[in-house]
Formats: sequence, structure tokens, C-alpha cells
Amino acid sequence: MFVILVYDIGERRVARVMKKCREYLTWVQNSVFEGEITRANLYRLRRELDQMIHHDEDSVIIYILRTTLYSKRVILGREKGGFDEIL
Amino acid sequence: MFVILVYDIGERRVARVMKKCREYLTWVQNSVFEGEITRANLYRLRRELDQMIHHDEDSVIIYILRTTLYSKRVILGREKGGFDEIL
Repeated sequence: MFVILVYDIGERRVARVMKKCREYLTWVQNSVFEGEITRANLYRLRRELDQMIHHDEDSVIIYILRTTLYSKRVILGREKGGFDEIL
Repeated sequence: MFVILVYDIGERRVARVMKKCREYLTWVQNSVFEGEITRANLYRLRRELDQMIHHDEDSVIIYILRTTLYSKRVILGREKGGFDEIL
């Protein structure tokens, strides 16, 4: 499956969260990651992030796409991440 | 169609970009919007943002989902935006 992960994390924890996301996904913009991920790894990532974040302050949204057949990505302006055109 | 829009915009332009996105989509997190949008409105939004941003500094990524049948959204931590559970 393909996921798009966006976060808004307190300054003290953001570096750790970013590092964790990098283990599984590709950085594409400021606080946005994306990539193909297995169900098992997504479970791990969710669990690990869930333990890291402060639930009253931080927010992580994960969009899970079972297939990318019906989606595409459009970019305006500069491309920050070094991703392939997967979508 | 359903779109997820994420941006990373220079400070001077971010308020205008946010306001423009609000006209068409729902704010869900820091620099993330989402929502159902018609093809015509998506065209307008893209054109308007394209005229607003600095292409060498700013970045807008729009994920366009033809259907949300094969996708879902998972949230960890707090929900910032006031969106419905559409996905």
C-alpha cells in the first residue's frame, strides 16, 4: 500500500519523529512523507509514532491508499524531496 | 474527486495561500488541506496558487484521488481541523 504521512509535532519531538518516518518512508516536503509500505511496517510505524508523540499537542495524519491506480500527484513550485515519480 | 494539498510557503505569502486554499478545501493540519473538489475548481485553485507562489522557494503538492474507495485516513494525536470523517 501507499501512504502519505503529514505531521505537526512540537519542536522538542520533531527531530525524532522525522528520523522515525525516514526509516520507512520518503521525505517529500517540510512535514510530509510518502511511500510504499507493507502492512506490517505501517503497523510498526504507527505504534512507534504513537509512543513518541504527545497526544494533546501533536498530530499525525496518515492517508493510506490501497492502490495508486486512481491517484496522481501534482507539484507547483519546487520539489524539495528527492522522490521518484511513483504516483 | 478528492484532494490532499500540502504546502511549504515562504512566510510573506503563506497567509494568502492559506486563504486561497480555504476557499476550496478544508483545513486539516498546519499546512495541509483536503476535500472533495470539482475538476473545474481544482483547475482554478491550481492556477491561482501557481500565480501566488514563488516557484524557486515555495512548494505545493496536490495528491488527486479519483475515488476514496481505496483509501482511508488514520489520525494519531489530536485532530486540529474541524473536518468530517469523509474517508
